[in-house]
Amino acid sequence: MKIALDAMGGDNAPDALVEGGLIASNQCKGEVEVVFVGDLERIEEVIKRNQQLADKARYSIVHASQVVEMDESPAIAIKKKPDASIFVAQKLQKEGKVDAVVSAGSTGAAMASALLTLGRLKGVHRPAIGTFVPHEDDFTFLIDVGANVDSKPRNLVEFAIMGSIFTSKIMGKPRPKVALLSIGEEKKKGNELTLQVHAELSQSKLNFIGNVEGNDILNSEANVIVCDGFVGNILLKFAENLYEVLREQIKRNVRGSKIAMMGAFLMTRVFKIIKKTWDYEEYGGVPLLGINGVVIISHGRSTAKAISNAILEAREMVDKKINEIIQQELENQRGMEIVSENA
Amino acid sequence: MKIALDAMGGDNAPDALVEGGLIASNQCKGEVEVVFVGDLERIEEVIKRNQQLADKARYSIVHASQVVEMDESPAIAIKKKPDASIFVAQKLQKEGKVDAVVSAGSTGAAMASALLTLGRLKGVHRPAIGTFVPHEDDFTFLIDVGANVDSKPRNLVEFAIMGSIFTSKIMGKPRPKVALLSIGEEKKKGNELTLQVHAELSQSKLNFIGNVEGNDILNSEANVIVCDGFVGNILLKFAENLYEVLREQIKRNVRGSKIAMMGAFLMTRVFKIIKKTWDYEEYGGVPLLGINGVVIISHGRSTAKAISNAILEAREMVDKKINEIIQQELENQRGMEIVSENA
Repeated sequence: MKIALDAMGGDNAPDALVEGGLIASNQCKGEVEVVFVGDLERIEEVIKRNQQLADKARYSIVHASQVVEMDESPAIAIKKKPDASIFVAQKLQKEGKVDAVVSAGSTGAAMASALLTLGRLKGVHRPAIGTFVPHEDDFTFLIDVGANVDSKPRNLVEFAIMGSIFTSKIMGKPRPKVALLSIGEEKKKGNELTLQVHAELSQSKLNFIGNVEGNDILNSEANVIVCDGFVGNILLKFAENLYEVLREQIKRNVRGSKIAMMGAFLMTRVFKIIKKTWDYEEYGGVPLLGINGVVIISHGRSTAKAISNAILEAREMVDKKINEIIQQELENQRGMEIVSENA
Repeated sequence: MKIALDAMGGDNAPDALVEGGLIASNQCKGEVEVVFVGDLERIEEVIKRNQQLADKARYSIVHASQVVEMDESPAIAIKKKPDASIFVAQKLQKEGKVDAVVSAGSTGAAMASALLTLGRLKGVHRPAIGTFVPHEDDFTFLIDVGANVDSKPRNLVEFAIMGSIFTSKIMGKPRPKVALLSIGEEKKKGNELTLQVHAELSQSKLNFIGNVEGNDILNSEANVIVCDGFVGNILLKFAENLYEVLREQIKRNVRGSKIAMMGAFLMTRVFKIIKKTWDYEEYGGVPLLGINGVVIISHGRSTAKAISNAILEAREMVDKKINEIIQQELENQRGMEIVSENA
């Protein structure tokens, strides 16, 4: 299997990307060839610095002369930077030269290029991006956080189906519990969208457990929580920022006092646990679901370990033919729906 | 001036409520009479326990035999519990026997009863609840978090106007900066609602600074951030819960280790600062804006100090004739709008 890695995307590119790619290939005992896409010279530099890893890894390099910056508009970048690493990587998948793409660069660019080159999966009206909301010893998969705005009920039902399949097949949650993000637990609490989605999910074959509220997200028994991308995107960015703001505030106040610095030192172990739970740098990648291909998006600050995890995740999505299952499930659900409509 | 206090609402009722009311009346040097509404005997008990405060306070008691529980449906409660403290308090305002109402009970019940008894302010299509999003040395006023779902552009513009007036007149922010919560800073980023609101706010007389994203909420220079209540409610509940979950996780992990316990002890001062910034118990009340009266809602966990602050806030809203200003501003804005429509 070949997995293309956008070596130029993300804050730690290309170093963490290339190192992560080599680690992954080693872990797969050569079963996976990592195709580094990006600046040839810079990639080779990093490989030299990780020669030991490289010796046991299967990899190749495809040169790409451009990079899409994090703050760049995907729409404009696609026109102006045809040779950007993420676009080249997606084209490789479109041409069947690789089986999946992993990127830690601009999510918008990854989504836009995937839609343009690979297109949507048959039966999917809108692709979505899910993310892991950490619990202390577990997680909930929140979908969509990829800013599908003004979603229709049909879209959220598809997000629920895709999220369930991903969490069961890849994250090993049998019969995932699916919840709907709303402003009250009663089925009549919500907005026009959620009221209708609640009704549709209740009739679906999914393991739907009802509505959850904002204060349930971190404690809910739900394995999958569905929402419109407008809400999901705002929540995700807010959560990451709140964590950082708290951390910075603690650091700043600790620096001001020798006693507090000693205290913080004695609490090192505790802070490590907190960081491990909440810091997005520690996580692997999240899938772009509903695309006619496999695309994993890693956090911009991903470490080599996180990138390696993302590649293993991509391999599993290919191995387990996630997209075939999604298409099949969508068919079943449609059948279901017609029955219930006629009923 | 007379301010009715729902003495039975909230986790610390009636103790913290009554004590807070007495503190407020003392601070106002008898200029404010606090009308405690609730169970006569229980209120008198608490007053006895705070005799020193009571001696210098101006207060009276109106008995109410029922209480709306936090988890009770406001719609049902209004029918089944006509003598609930919050409803009795609102009726007192409707009849002109008090000038404002403060409650730490069910927000839904306070809103529902306010709409039923006091009604909307002339020119306001939908009332809204704003809340303070803490910054380290400041705050942003987020409106609506009161679950006005499926808001129309007109509603958000009204939220912006009401929020601006509240933050300038009561919170002392001259010419408040108003931002719109969306998923991108560019004016073309957002959903149908925010795109239209952005256009309307740009044409308004408000000090509109554009869109902010989820990760800007805690760092934005905006004094007022407007959003639909569905998003605002989910964000607010998520934020409160995330803070609590983090605090609990730290506590639990500290307990496990003597060294960490020593560390936490040495960090006491730092944790106090964090708590002061983030803990909602530390805040006063938030206004129900757009109601034909003055209603301040305090957090269910409010301390006596927080309740006292809420009463002083209510007094200011009455003194400064906030509702008259809102009506006037809405008139101005309408004029504005017609001009721009004809232009």
